[in-house]
Amino acid sequence: MGSLPSEVFSPLDTNIYSKESHAMVDFIADYYRHIEQYPVRSQVKPGYLSKILPDTPPIFSEPIDTILEDVKKDIIPGLTHWQSPNFYAYFQANASTAGFLGEMLCSGFNVVGFSWISSPAATELESIVMDWMAKMMKLPSMFLFSGGQGGGGVLHGSTCEAVVCTLAAARDKALSKIGHDSITKLVVYASDQTHFTVQKASKIIGIPTSNFRALPTCSSSYYALTADTVRKAMESDMAQGLVPLYLCATVGTTAVGAVDPLFELGQLAQEFDVWLHVDSAYAGSSAICPEFRNYFDGVELADSISMNPHKWFLTNMDCCCLWIKNPYLLVDSLSTNPEILRNKASDAKVVVDYKDWQVTLSRRFRAIKLWLVIRRYGVANLMEHIRSDVALAEHFERMVNMDDRFEVVVPRKFSLVCFRLKPKFEACEEANNYSKLNRELLEDINNSGRAFMTHAVVSSTFVIRFAIGTTLTKKTHVEETWKLIQSKATDLLNRKYTK
Amino acid sequence: MGSLPSEVFSPLDTNIYSKESHAMVDFIADYYRHIEQYPVRSQVKPGYLSKILPDTPPIFSEPIDTILEDVKKDIIPGLTHWQSPNFYAYFQANASTAGFLGEMLCSGFNVVGFSWISSPAATELESIVMDWMAKMMKLPSMFLFSGGQGGGGVLHGSTCEAVVCTLAAARDKALSKIGHDSITKLVVYASDQTHFTVQKASKIIGIPTSNFRALPTCSSSYYALTADTVRKAMESDMAQGLVPLYLCATVGTTAVGAVDPLFELGQLAQEFDVWLHVDSAYAGSSAICPEFRNYFDGVELADSISMNPHKWFLTNMDCCCLWIKNPYLLVDSLSTNPEILRNKASDAKVVVDYKDWQVTLSRRFRAIKLWLVIRRYGVANLMEHIRSDVALAEHFERMVNMDDRFEVVVPRKFSLVCFRLKPKFEACEEANNYSKLNRELLEDINNSGRAFMTHAVVSSTFVIRFAIGTTLTKKTHVEETWKLIQSKATDLLNRKYTK
Repeated sequence: MGSLPSEVFSPLDTNIYSKESHAMVDFIADYYRHIEQYPVRSQVKPGYLSKILPDTPPIFSEPIDTILEDVKKDIIPGLTHWQSPNFYAYFQANASTAGFLGEMLCSGFNVVGFSWISSPAATELESIVMDWMAKMMKLPSMFLFSGGQGGGGVLHGSTCEAVVCTLAAARDKALSKIGHDSITKLVVYASDQTHFTVQKASKIIGIPTSNFRALPTCSSSYYALTADTVRKAMESDMAQGLVPLYLCATVGTTAVGAVDPLFELGQLAQEFDVWLHVDSAYAGSSAICPEFRNYFDGVELADSISMNPHKWFLTNMDCCCLWIKNPYLLVDSLSTNPEILRNKASDAKVVVDYKDWQVTLSRRFRAIKLWLVIRRYGVANLMEHIRSDVALAEHFERMVNMDDRFEVVVPRKFSLVCFRLKPKFEACEEANNYSKLNRELLEDINNSGRAFMTHAVVSSTFVIRFAIGTTLTKKTHVEETWKLIQSKATDLLNRKYTK
Repeated sequence: MGSLPSEVFSPLDTNIYSKESHAMVDFIADYYRHIEQYPVRSQVKPGYLSKILPDTPPIFSEPIDTILEDVKKDIIPGLTHWQSPNFYAYFQANASTAGFLGEMLCSGFNVVGFSWISSPAATELESIVMDWMAKMMKLPSMFLFSGGQGGGGVLHGSTCEAVVCTLAAARDKALSKIGHDSITKLVVYASDQTHFTVQKASKIIGIPTSNFRALPTCSSSYYALTADTVRKAMESDMAQGLVPLYLCATVGTTAVGAVDPLFELGQLAQEFDVWLHVDSAYAGSSAICPEFRNYFDGVELADSISMNPHKWFLTNMDCCCLWIKNPYLLVDSLSTNPEILRNKASDAKVVVDYKDWQVTLSRRFRAIKLWLVIRRYGVANLMEHIRSDVALAEHFERMVNMDDRFEVVVPRKFSLVCFRLKPKFEACEEANNYSKLNRELLEDINNSGRAFMTHAVVSSTFVIRFAIGTTLTKKTHVEETWKLIQSKATDLLNRKYTK
């Protein structure tokens, strides 16, 4: 028999909690105050940390001050600073005070709302906030709980989870008619610009990799998927006895911010009886502004739509909204009703049990974070936030256009500018060299530590992606970064062509 | 063209961040100070919140004080208080100051470490801390990065994600030999006590539900799965042309804390060439104490093992450790290498890219939370924490045994006591009534708001689960709760049998 609990070790002692949490607030505030001093993309070499940290855990407790000193000394140099105002890579993960406060509440309450009864407020606030978001985005009522047509939304951690779940729902609906043996006949459609998460999700749920179609797009349609391409692919597959299952359309692709034509694809999806999912992970946030809402026309024909407030909606990681017209299909596919979780409210079927709307059982109270962001800032400020990022991108695009050594490769729609160095003097006008040139330019910029961008390749063209959206980015940062890009380009061209 | 950003709306202004975050620390400290005053299981009725909250989001920003007042007034009554010292339901999700601080850092940095380059410290700290945890649990070296045999670990959000990923790896390894058409022949084995997440995961990855075996356990083996039962099931399936794929063994089942015999099951798994996964979501934490480590003997024969620090290791939600002997199988199944994420370090294959070890692309910096918990408390305190919870459970078990109206139904191994009311006087000695009686008793206890427990049914016997592990639970809480149980039992028996 062990000893009874000592009163000495009290890991939730309120006084210690307060003291150390206040110290942590100051530490993080200090981090934000100095964030511009750090190289944006970490400059460490692989394996740097195991050379510094002990390879065994400490036996005895260490004071928080010591640990925070180590965070400063050992961890911060190894971070790529996503909150740096000069972070223009991937798509941003924009943090905010309200998002941070929401995470604090989520972590402080530390409730697990898998079933309604396990924390009713967690479930009910999530349903309410999903309807709020849907209203902000002007989604059709069939996606809302309050729409009275059976629809509703759920918060996942990531788009991949949303795609896995909707794919599983679509798959099980199809297999219930044609038998499980036909799983190898099911085909998933996307474009060569669709996020790779769809291909991964498709593989996870058991679709053969040979049954995933990354349909070609081209520059003439600005890398949007055309209904004609999809129709031909589906007809060709059906002719071979395959069964079209699921089509993913994107509003705001990762590489270049392309927008697939939802209305045309939606009509096609209905004609072929395939599940249409709309992935608007990044650009979904823009739908709250009327001037961008047109990109979502046709969403009423979709079966589901997802977007990530953790990208461009001031909501700290993680937070992905998924709305679905027929959530019962999700529940049919993902529900479990073990005795151990049975309770009166669930048995009476009068509540939502979100465990049946997602992969995992455990879930964090993300709704309170999104609710806090929306309330603290309000719709007007959130619209302003989107518009100001887009205005900054327009500003950047104009500057690129004014320097005739550069070109904007794909017309900008949101806050992502895709450009490249394409000097017009003879020595470097061999098309094949541009990719190499821009790769070097990007490497020079990122190695400087003063900004971080990533790239894409479309139609064999290497482009530099300049994604605006980090919360701290102001006009001065964009202008300074443009000067940095220009100067690195000048250096590079001098180095290469004026020997 | 929109207007350029106004300087007025600054959602990461450091002064506002500091002021509001300090206020939130005080708010949460206040919550913990008063947590015993709230009903443990929320007493609200379904739909309570939509009657209170507006059905549209606010147009303009609201002050944090107003929002926090609403949290107190509208949200807290709808919470089931997982951090209440009188929460004995499910398995706990025990929070700590260090866990909370770790979440603050994770959310404050808000980096997304999907690839090494996207935040090297996030990846490297995760690998280091996974080795630390493995060493604390005395896992065999083949599960460690530093073991030199190719093994390693990753942090997921939940066991279900760990099971989906390992199942997908096992499936794809098998199908690469026998062809994708054979997916309908693959069979997954678990016991009737295994967490339902395995059945769900199996369905998600495309295994027909008819190919999932929930093999029977019985009271004589204390609800552990026997190798003999598994062997017979596998032989029977093979005789029908099916292919055994994956066996999940559990250390510390959800219903009664049963422990499957890892060594025997491991030998069998090797003989039949099936993937053995060990789920120790709850009891895994106990492996850091030598006196519980014997339950993990045989884990060296497993292909993978998972446990959740967010359950019993003072680590706030969410955090699930998964170790795997051959991570390349995970990567084979889950990797994606889109151009957009290509970078020198990944191309050179000298780094871990955790995106290929999990379902999602996005991932939070959970490693810093687990690292902070381990450093702040140290191994000695963490062992003490496990031991004191187990000692409290022993204490509770003794009290149950001393009241001859009650019985302990399944011998206790960790900090979970499964008991029931079984009064020995004639009027209620009809076995069929005990389940009804205990269901009523549990409802009476939970309706009191003074404690929250859940139930399980084993061998048709309804048992009340008393799971100890919430951070604030002290001996006085357990003793008071036992008095509450006794008094509710007395009331119930009087009400029913002394008319």
